[in-house]
Amino acid sequence: MKSDIPSLMAQRNLDAIVVYGSTDTSSDLAYLTGGVHLEGGLYLQTKEKEPVLFSSALERENAQATGYSTRLWSDYPLGRYLEARHGDMLQARAAQWRDVFEDYDVCGRVGFYGMQDMGYAWRFLNVLETLIPEIQVVGESPPNLFATARETKDAHEIELMRRVGRATTEVIANVFDFLSSHHAHEGRLCKSDGAPLTIGDVKAFIRLELVKRNLEEAHENIFSQGRDAGIPHNVGHYDMPLKLGKTIIFDIFPRDRATGYFHDITRTFFLGYAPDELAPKWYDVKYVFDRVMSEIQPGESGGRYQRLTCDLFETMGYPTICSDPKTTVGYIHSLGHGVGLDIHENPRLSTLGRQTLLKPGHVVSVEPGLYYPDEEWGIRIEDTIAFDEKGDVINLSSFPYEMIIPVG
Amino acid sequence: MKSDIPSLMAQRNLDAIVVYGSTDTSSDLAYLTGGVHLEGGLYLQTKEKEPVLFSSALERENAQATGYSTRLWSDYPLGRYLEARHGDMLQARAAQWRDVFEDYDVCGRVGFYGMQDMGYAWRFLNVLETLIPEIQVVGESPPNLFATARETKDAHEIELMRRVGRATTEVIANVFDFLSSHHAHEGRLCKSDGAPLTIGDVKAFIRLELVKRNLEEAHENIFSQGRDAGIPHNVGHYDMPLKLGKTIIFDIFPRDRATGYFHDITRTFFLGYAPDELAPKWYDVKYVFDRVMSEIQPGESGGRYQRLTCDLFETMGYPTICSDPKTTVGYIHSLGHGVGLDIHENPRLSTLGRQTLLKPGHVVSVEPGLYYPDEEWGIRIEDTIAFDEKGDVINLSSFPYEMIIPVG
Repeated sequence: MKSDIPSLMAQRNLDAIVVYGSTDTSSDLAYLTGGVHLEGGLYLQTKEKEPVLFSSALERENAQATGYSTRLWSDYPLGRYLEARHGDMLQARAAQWRDVFEDYDVCGRVGFYGMQDMGYAWRFLNVLETLIPEIQVVGESPPNLFATARETKDAHEIELMRRVGRATTEVIANVFDFLSSHHAHEGRLCKSDGAPLTIGDVKAFIRLELVKRNLEEAHENIFSQGRDAGIPHNVGHYDMPLKLGKTIIFDIFPRDRATGYFHDITRTFFLGYAPDELAPKWYDVKYVFDRVMSEIQPGESGGRYQRLTCDLFETMGYPTICSDPKTTVGYIHSLGHGVGLDIHENPRLSTLGRQTLLKPGHVVSVEPGLYYPDEEWGIRIEDTIAFDEKGDVINLSSFPYEMIIPVG
Repeated sequence: MKSDIPSLMAQRNLDAIVVYGSTDTSSDLAYLTGGVHLEGGLYLQTKEKEPVLFSSALERENAQATGYSTRLWSDYPLGRYLEARHGDMLQARAAQWRDVFEDYDVCGRVGFYGMQDMGYAWRFLNVLETLIPEIQVVGESPPNLFATARETKDAHEIELMRRVGRATTEVIANVFDFLSSHHAHEGRLCKSDGAPLTIGDVKAFIRLELVKRNLEEAHENIFSQGRDAGIPHNVGHYDMPLKLGKTIIFDIFPRDRATGYFHDITRTFFLGYAPDELAPKWYDVKYVFDRVMSEIQPGESGGRYQRLTCDLFETMGYPTICSDPKTTVGYIHSLGHGVGLDIHENPRLSTLGRQTLLKPGHVVSVEPGLYYPDEEWGIRIEDTIAFDEKGDVINLSSFPYEMIIPVG
């Protein structure tokens, strides 16, 4: 939570933190501004003093809306620094920051955050450290201070995430009604003029439904059929007609434009009917999903549920990445991930890396799946859940799990 | 242009380049993939060999669609590296890259690109340089290799940018018709039920128009009235009713979802009538805009037109940032910027930093403006233009400049 930042700084023995970038790409900065947009913002916080936020004069009212004490870059005019440094932008920016750091008593161990070009960041921070002997640059191995602060949501954030969850499930309901309103002909769904209904048509419908609810598609949603559903991140081919009896993975993860929070939910279904050889696979995934949902609780590591998922799938005879990291069929990804101002954040329901224990305020997706592109199917079922203060699960994705969507 | 990359590498004496990140945030990677989406991609190119693209198995078909030779991260399983490094993600990733670099004969001067957390990037590249004595990390001061390659568009890119320009002007035309279709009552625009039409209503209409054309609002568009128009990046207050006789800045910069290219265009208008004290200001901005549009040509520096703009405004008696970098009224920003896969890229029509000369294939916005928030007005007029092979201007924003939108 945001209120954890001072203690997280102390744990890391940081004297100051600096977050630099655009809120559109740097979700750590958006977290601090409360969703207020800044294109070139710098947030500076030392152990002793109140935070200060630098912005361009063009964005001064946005900066003021955050409630932080604000300053303008034009108080340290870049042009003056550029002139003195023969137009070298990196050297000029470093000299500008040196003066800012001096005025705000930034010294000691300084953690740097925010998204920048990686080569630029490396060189800039090396130049800065040389230019300002009083500071020691600190770069963190993941999860960094902000990943740790952000992985626990406060009650207000959970409420915002409930809202985006509700709006997202409204979209799904309308998409299912839209599909059902079409009739089938020779195994394909048809529009009123007889032309086949395509994935592109459905995506256009989904986008209209999203925009009506002020949801944005920051990353392209997945609506993939048959063979495409067998490769998890295939988003679906626009010109493909919708067919009866194929697995369709509908994985939708919009962002609420008003608050910046994401939701993540997947339903897999068949139009009209489920073939005898595929229906049991759907139930296998649903069984694993239900087992995880009934067992998941705070106090355990995310990796525990990834291992449970692998064990259950392997018992059924499917290959998994737990026993074969190179498999491209069976269960081939992690069970879930934190959801918040990024679609993928901490904590991870994965066996990789250091294990954080789940706790109240964590919001994670739970998304077991099976993938067999050469057999032309893939199935994934996903909800996003939160743990409340008592550790109980709140399902933010509350929506029925239907294997078959009836068509006319 | 993409075909310039080998010569740009040679100019910088680079033996290899590495681009790492998600195409959603790293436009340099999206440039290389031709818009194909990758969440965790690594592009590796050495002087001697064909490029190779690494992706997750979940995205293997996306990676293949780029046409590059592809590899899977699972060939270098992260879990194995994590185990050997006690779960430290940064150390594990560095060891994984060391093996990749060894297999692909990466040595010498290596340039790193792509968006990452700045502290992470700094530490990771320092660790990598220590771990692989054969490489020397190179981080560039702006404009880097990709900024330089991307600032010149080839004929295909210009055609894609024409398309997004046309679609954007269709949206503007429909927004103007939408506004005109409303009647005025007591100086405000009203809906059929008598309720005031608000900026929020107009934004909702704009978003529907965008989504119908497969355009996305990657950064929030500006529809700001009166005082808000006086601060360039104020996006407009949703609950504000539209009033007659106020300056309204409509600055729209959508991205074509299919190709990733942006367009950028601004119109400032009054609903119903222009007050006598403000109409001449609109003509002042239009005059400066027309002067720049008639004079701008390849072979000159972008800064020349910023100086022209400042000189013209100062002759009229307005303050400008050229003579007073701290002014918050008058002309307070640069004249324009490159447009492409980022909304703001090179070249810059600014006096800051080293001056690139304009040349065929450059695509830039031209956007003079005046801002007086305390007097409750702001005016900006903007088109995006390209220079064709002969150096002639192609206006990608072709759309009328109307000072007044009539209302019922």
